[in-house]
Amino acid sequence: MADTIFQKILDGDIPCHEIYRDEHVLSFLDINPLSRGHTLVIPVEPAETLDDLSDEASAAIGRVLPRISRAVLAATGAKAFNVLQNNGRLAHQEVLHVHFHIIPRYDDGTGLGVGWNVIGTLDGNEGADLSSSIRAKL
Amino acid sequence: MADTIFQKILDGDIPCHEIYRDEHVLSFLDINPLSRGHTLVIPVEPAETLDDLSDEASAAIGRVLPRISRAVLAATGAKAFNVLQNNGRLAHQEVLHVHFHIIPRYDDGTGLGVGWNVIGTLDGNEGADLSSSIRAKL
Repeated sequence: MADTIFQKILDGDIPCHEIYRDEHVLSFLDINPLSRGHTLVIPVEPAETLDDLSDEASAAIGRVLPRISRAVLAATGAKAFNVLQNNGRLAHQEVLHVHFHIIPRYDDGTGLGVGWNVIGTLDGNEGADLSSSIRAKL
Repeated sequence: MADTIFQKILDGDIPCHEIYRDEHVLSFLDINPLSRGHTLVIPVEPAETLDDLSDEASAAIGRVLPRISRAVLAATGAKAFNVLQNNGRLAHQEVLHVHFHIIPRYDDGTGLGVGWNVIGTLDGNEGADLSSSIRAKL
């Protein structure tokens, strides 16, 4: 894996506006925010996508998301927020190092744009088959 | 907190197409999917929003996200996906029980619509002040 901008931030070669750091996790402000307080949470472990991240690193991120979210809300006054994590170019991933966005949503409309186009209600037989197929791959 | 549809699913009062269950986490197919394999991961703990969830419950979700994501990708053939977690009506939360969406993204365009409207590059002084304010609330 080539050094991403996030690896350079982890290594201290590029500065960041740091929010939190521990053995497994670094959190800092997004330099191109969708809204005030837009924060990134990344693993120290250099995985490109979430499906390649270790259980332990992902658990460490999960553990700090509530705490960092509370601090972002408290500091910004935001009452709503989205957590987004993109995997693959087709899913809008730009930096190939796992990152979770914490994006406050404000009354002025700044924040994440969420496009919700349902493909239809899940058919019972299809749901049974699909869930069975996914369980078999766990 | 009133019983949500997810609480009823947790209690077994409403069926679901289950993917995974442990002491802290339940995962099942979304009945109104944005794409084939759209999966939900929820805590057993009844928190409305992520900022109200315990560190332990959130860590338990984090721990299983890579494994469930891999299984969804393997079963569906999807190569890209988004993880989304909404907090507050303004941020498109519909069910008031914490839930993480795993949403495969396909070449046919089905999946999550991501609207990315940057408010501008973060000014250095503003970033220093804001990160300091957030750190003070941790």
